[in-house]
Amino acid sequence: MKRIRVIGIGMGDPGHLTRDAVEALATVDVFLVADKGEAKADLVRARQRICAELIPWSHRYRVIEVVDPERGPDRERDSAAYGRGVRDWHAARVDAYAEVLATLQPHEQTVGFLVWGDPAFYDSTIRIVDALRPRFGVAVDVLPGISAPQLLAARHGIPLNRIGAPIHITTGRRLLEEYRPELGDVVVMLDGHLQCAGLAETHPDLRLYWGAQLGTPDEALVSGRLAEVIDEVRRLRAEIRARDGWVMDTYLLRPA
Amino acid sequence: MKRIRVIGIGMGDPGHLTRDAVEALATVDVFLVADKGEAKADLVRARQRICAELIPWSHRYRVIEVVDPERGPDRERDSAAYGRGVRDWHAARVDAYAEVLATLQPHEQTVGFLVWGDPAFYDSTIRIVDALRPRFGVAVDVLPGISAPQLLAARHGIPLNRIGAPIHITTGRRLLEEYRPELGDVVVMLDGHLQCAGLAETHPDLRLYWGAQLGTPDEALVSGRLAEVIDEVRRLRAEIRARDGWVMDTYLLRPA
Ligand SMILES: C[S@@+](CC[C@H](N)C(=O)[O-])C[C@H]1O[C@@H](n2cnc3c(N)ncnc32)[C@H](O)[C@@H]1O
Ligand SMILES: C[S@@+](CC[C@H](N)C(=O)[O-])C[C@H]1O[C@@H](n2cnc3c(N)ncnc32)[C@H](O)[C@@H]1O
Repeated sequence: MKRIRVIGIGMGDPGHLTRDAVEALATVDVFLVADKGEAKADLVRARQRICAELIPWSHRYRVIEVVDPERGPDRERDSAAYGRGVRDWHAARVDAYAEVLATLQPHEQTVGFLVWGDPAFYDSTIRIVDALRPRFGVAVDVLPGISAPQLLAARHGIPLNRIGAPIHITTGRRLLEEYRPELGDVVVMLDGHLQCAGLAETHPDLRLYWGAQLGTPDEALVSGRLAEVIDEVRRLRAEIRARDGWVMDTYLLRPA
Repeated sequence: MKRIRVIGIGMGDPGHLTRDAVEALATVDVFLVADKGEAKADLVRARQRICAELIPWSHRYRVIEVVDPERGPDRERDSAAYGRGVRDWHAARVDAYAEVLATLQPHEQTVGFLVWGDPAFYDSTIRIVDALRPRFGVAVDVLPGISAPQLLAARHGIPLNRIGAPIHITTGRRLLEEYRPELGDVVVMLDGHLQCAGLAETHPDLRLYWGAQLGTPDEALVSGRLAEVIDEVRRLRAEIRARDGWVMDTYLLRPA
């Protein structure tokens, strides 16, 4: 193996990939794929569609599914314990990948990881590849992709910042403890519990721009005054979960 | 006119555009372009190259350069005055665009704005289009693009966040007054004066990931302990400015 390419695929639609990313797909001999979580089947399908539509017929490649090690419960509120849990899990994943990479055939020189959105935002692939790199002595490159916050902004037709003001991107787990209006426009990801509901009383005038299943046919968007729209978002979220079996949402909180 | 499309073009390389953005280019009858600042000639050239390489020969379009109104001095440290200055300037730009749009021919139904990077990050196009929309009653859509922070992360082969931690994106003008390690990984844009130098004494252990002219053949990257690499970055920045006549840089500050 000579090279690992980390390829951002956007929110699953073949139209989201950059031209550079499409070109990179056609250089990959083996795709390593680990899927997990509730959205598993849909995410796998999106990746298959991307490969089928964007890789030329003449190019031969394999897809290897790497069984993802069990991840311990991560409801940990304490950041140190949360970090430790994630790191242990990463170490186990690194070993699982290394095992697979050791079995590649001599003509399989380029390995590709397809990353949901942009590899730069809340994704562990780069950390895993960094751990694999010294074991295999390979070159690595990263192709950025359209992330969930960017598609959220595009769909709502808004910038992520107000004039000259900052953008703060955080997780549901940290939101309530971190929130202050001085952070600027706050983007929340990885929020399984709509934590912003906890700000509706203290900061009712925040403007919420919410989006779920962005980039899919089931995309849902809501915007408005936090206190006024939070119930509608809650209802929609439950509806989507009941229908699709999973919900992935991202939102922006903008001071009035 | 029926539609305005705001198209993110990434950092100027035709390979940065998404497939959706490329498709959108070929639907545009009139591109409105306003260029300004030191990088003017190079940015215009990058846009011309994108249109020339990515729009099919058979598609006819016009490019109209809109003369950008003079912008007052914006060294204002005070945020309110800064915001006011930018808003006055926007109002003048809106009028300039409206004047041009009023002269379009009947077959010119789709107007396109090519936006550097992603329209969601520190760009005024969406605000201008929002002001034009009611005057012309048009539909608007936004195609996201690869932003400077994303290309910075890809080139350094890093994620923008540490595990479960936040990402804060701010401007050079605000950095020194805002900076606290609790903000997480801090991305700085629009910094003409390398403000992070002012943190080298108080936070020498911050890790700096710096990139200039990202996506161009003159791309420059530096990473390392802030206190150790700041002089090299200063030197490189001056060298690039002397050679190219302009420098656009973005950097990440990561707590040790
Ligand atoms: C593990 S992170 C991966 C983020 C991804 N690398 C990116 O660039 O957007 C997963 C989180 O991304 C957001 N997300 C991913 N896909 C989404 C979608 N289709 N619609 C809305 N949010 C999404 C959600 O906040 C979800 O909890
Ligand atoms: C007006 S903002 C536009 C940002 C753009 N919309 C984006 O998505 O990156 C201009 C700032 O973007 C960053 N930038 C733009 N192009 C860059 C490049 N080629 N290399 C490094 N930074 C760049 C710099 O921080 C610059 O001051």
